Amino acid sequence: MGRVWRRGEDGDWSGVTPADYAGGAERHTIIGRADGATQVELRYFRMPPGTASSRERHAHEHTIVVLEGTAEIQLGSETHLVRPGDAVFVAAAETHRIRSVGEDPLGFLCTAPVARRRGVEGLLGD
Amino acid sequence: MGRVWRRGEDGDWSGVTPADYAGGAERHTIIGRADGATQVELRYFRMPPGTASSRERHAHEHTIVVLEGTAEIQLGSETHLVRPGDAVFVAAAETHRIRSVGEDPLGFLCTAPVARRRGVEGLLGD
Repeated sequence: MGRVWRRGEDGDWSGVTPADYAGGAERHTIIGRADGATQVELRYFRMPPGTASSRERHAHEHTIVVLEGTAEIQLGSETHLVRPGDAVFVAAAETHRIRSVGEDPLGFLCTAPVARRRGVEGLLGD
Repeated sequence: MGRVWRRGEDGDWSGVTPADYAGGAERHTIIGRADGATQVELRYFRMPPGTASSRERHAHEHTIVVLEGTAEIQLGSETHLVRPGDAVFVAAAETHRIRSVGEDPLGFLCTAPVARRRGVEGLLGD
């Protein structure tokens, strides 16, 4: 069954418990397997200023939309500065890393297929 | 290869041409097959006040995040009012319809699997 999640004043979603993620980030799984999703998972990551994700490379693709803050994102050999509203496609097997480079926390939406290899850092990261 | 899309002052994304969609809406395919995406497609829909999508029911799931405006979304037999930041999961085979009920245009992100039946209105809509 479908469902609605409200975003609160604190920027969190009703009923979503943030999980600690590598590098000091929080992962909020807004829509995932626990909600009956079988195709696409929707997550939100919040990264304090100065933090970075681990360098990852995996078979699944990401679509990303920045909601708050400023990110420096590495895609293969290129680096891009992205801001709220900007979108990023991370292709399969493309090395990527995200840094929170603004004065405020970085917050971004990030999709991943529900069916993917999970829980392995680095070459097969999340 | 991965790529970045900038969101402009007008709320559109660089390099994305809006397409007319049913009911007076615009569909912006930000990340799709043309960009090499094989798993998840990221679209943005803009709906003028007072407009509604067609009633749809299909095998693919949606994850939705409202960016601007106010939406009344029907999920099966329930109706929810959602605002910027709120997220919605549309389950497989769940009847859904979105109305733009605020004074300003409604804008929302909506994912769909790249592999899906396409282009048929109604029971197998987009």
